[in-house]
Amino acid sequence: MRSYKVALLPGDGIGPEVVGVAAEILAYLAERAGFALEMKEAPIGGAAYDKYGHPLPEHTLALCKESDAVLLGAVGGPKWDTVQPPSLRPEVGALLPLRKELGLYANLRPARLSSALASASSLKAELVQDGLDILVVRELTGGIYFGQPKGRDADGSRAVDTCVYTRFEIERILRVGFETARGRKRKLCSVDKANVLETSRLWREVADQMAPQYPDVELTHMLVDNCAMQLVRDPRQFDVIVTENMFGDILSDEAAMLTGSLGMLPSASLGDRHTQGGTFGLYEPVHGSAPTIAGKNIANPLATLLSAAMLLRYSLGENEAAEALERAVEKALQDGLRTADIAAAHQPTIGTKEMGQAVRERI
Amino acid sequence: MRSYKVALLPGDGIGPEVVGVAAEILAYLAERAGFALEMKEAPIGGAAYDKYGHPLPEHTLALCKESDAVLLGAVGGPKWDTVQPPSLRPEVGALLPLRKELGLYANLRPARLSSALASASSLKAELVQDGLDILVVRELTGGIYFGQPKGRDADGSRAVDTCVYTRFEIERILRVGFETARGRKRKLCSVDKANVLETSRLWREVADQMAPQYPDVELTHMLVDNCAMQLVRDPRQFDVIVTENMFGDILSDEAAMLTGSLGMLPSASLGDRHTQGGTFGLYEPVHGSAPTIAGKNIANPLATLLSAAMLLRYSLGENEAAEALERAVEKALQDGLRTADIAAAHQPTIGTKEMGQAVRERI
Ligand SMILES: CC(C)[C@H](C(=O)O)[C@@H](O)C(=O)O
Ligand SMILES: CC(C)[C@H](C(=O)O)[C@@H](O)C(=O)O
Repeated sequence: MRSYKVALLPGDGIGPEVVGVAAEILAYLAERAGFALEMKEAPIGGAAYDKYGHPLPEHTLALCKESDAVLLGAVGGPKWDTVQPPSLRPEVGALLPLRKELGLYANLRPARLSSALASASSLKAELVQDGLDILVVRELTGGIYFGQPKGRDADGSRAVDTCVYTRFEIERILRVGFETARGRKRKLCSVDKANVLETSRLWREVADQMAPQYPDVELTHMLVDNCAMQLVRDPRQFDVIVTENMFGDILSDEAAMLTGSLGMLPSASLGDRHTQGGTFGLYEPVHGSAPTIAGKNIANPLATLLSAAMLLRYSLGENEAAEALERAVEKALQDGLRTADIAAAHQPTIGTKEMGQAVRERI
Repeated sequence: MRSYKVALLPGDGIGPEVVGVAAEILAYLAERAGFALEMKEAPIGGAAYDKYGHPLPEHTLALCKESDAVLLGAVGGPKWDTVQPPSLRPEVGALLPLRKELGLYANLRPARLSSALASASSLKAELVQDGLDILVVRELTGGIYFGQPKGRDADGSRAVDTCVYTRFEIERILRVGFETARGRKRKLCSVDKANVLETSRLWREVADQMAPQYPDVELTHMLVDNCAMQLVRDPRQFDVIVTENMFGDILSDEAAMLTGSLGMLPSASLGDRHTQGGTFGLYEPVHGSAPTIAGKNIANPLATLLSAAMLLRYSLGENEAAEALERAVEKALQDGLRTADIAAAHQPTIGTKEMGQAVRERI
């Protein structure tokens, strides 16, 4: 029997609720499809800081390392925004080291808008009525996030950050861009600031050198300022966008908000360790910990379910189960089921658990 | 008699046409208001490269330095996109050194949408029907654009860019932010990435230290990824946004596109040299050189006219003339006059010169 290990990191705010729903559905899918799933939970974020004095305890990191995949809820909240030193705050103290330690260099952020939810977008109907489907591939362990030197002069009058990229780092993330474009509409837009940045000039050069290996993919280059514009002007022009860490942080959030439904958006962060079914990765909803609605059974679990589907596909290679789950989510939407965040005015709403139940019934 | 020197740099593409219209109107306003305007023209961009082998000839720079203000059309076009070395291409070879040499550290980018043009926006009517009015204040001579080291390893396997900010640089741009907010709705949103960047942490610290000097201005902080989202979600929440060079490049373009009418957007880049009437500055439309429509009398001159209005206000201190010009532009719009780029389907359009004439008649 196929057998996999998945680490569950519920984290803070609504994290435990949405991960709870996803864990149940994963178990159900495993039973149905005939594979064994060993799911173990570990603390992360503010919850871990409160209990162990660190947002990423050693044993949590160890559990991730011995797993085939990680499902993360969310970390952070006002309670920990002023923790000193800042390096112990949930986002920076847990997420950044997790990415670095697990080698999660490729962040996949689909910005999909189901036509059933088109009215949630800030954009005019004519721009989004047929839905939206952009994939942002963001480099996640390099660039200005991690480059050295990074610090402040002794007298505090000057600060410095360093953006570094090696050819190796650029090549492996562009490869993810080309490969994912292959599985979609075969259009890859590489975003940089090559008219100003030396790292971007190297980036563009590497992309052009790799292009002949992917004759079936149409490669274009776009400057980051223009891309921020074009996403607003006409997002349908994009299929896959691939870019460096900082630009990806900004553009993936802009693209996400174009859908108007953050509660629907999953993400995957892939490393290069092979698992039996694919590649080790960490999966999490884009929405964050939403502390004000935590514990009330009103959070939308669909982003986490779609993250779980990505987990099944990319790390376990259980493509059928992944598709079954995605279809069930779409079916629930088409049937008019809505949590509060995605409901139109006067549309009836259901809770977190009920939405989980509704998806399960549609599998 | 009050007397000023203005340098005109028409540049490439539609630059000469729109600067031509603006120069005529400036002369008309000067005569009417009773001040003397000495306008001298100099080459820049691709046009200068073709004639002198450099996109920013010495004598052009010298003219700018002895003027009270500079009005720039636009630079660049496909003809010069592959000039070698890249440092001689119009954008990088003219704009960046111009900013640095003239000390233009404060870039003011108003993203205003006249309610007459609300339908041009990509955003839903409910988000923009009352118009939009955001001012992005971007730091323009520091950060990752100019920081050293910047370059590539000898074997070409690694590239580096450096983001540097001094307390002095941060303070003077934040001061522009606070001061301009004072003249508007008194809301200043300082945008950074303080959870990751050392330069952003210094930025935020300086902002918090300055805030008590501006008790009448409400200062908030926002992370750049969140700001890229919030601009799409609800742009009306912003009054003045102040941010560093790279983030400002991205966010000012995103905000500009929210209006849907690039042909309407002016910009000012201010230095710290005092002129008789204010501060030395360079003024240019946001739209760029649009080579495909150059020389056809169809370009929209309004962004350049609104840039000229900023020139009158900030560098010459001729506030009445500035307001008269802005009112005349708004009047022309309210009267239904449209160049092709801002016309709705089936709305009649007029040419560049005719729009200039229409504005002039309404002064
Ligand atoms: C919390 C922060 C460090 C992080 C980032 O900038 O990468 C977040 O914005 C994200 O996109 O996951
Ligand atoms: C042409 C380029 C160097 C420039 C910049 O990045 O500053 C442009 O995008 C701008 O915003 O004026």
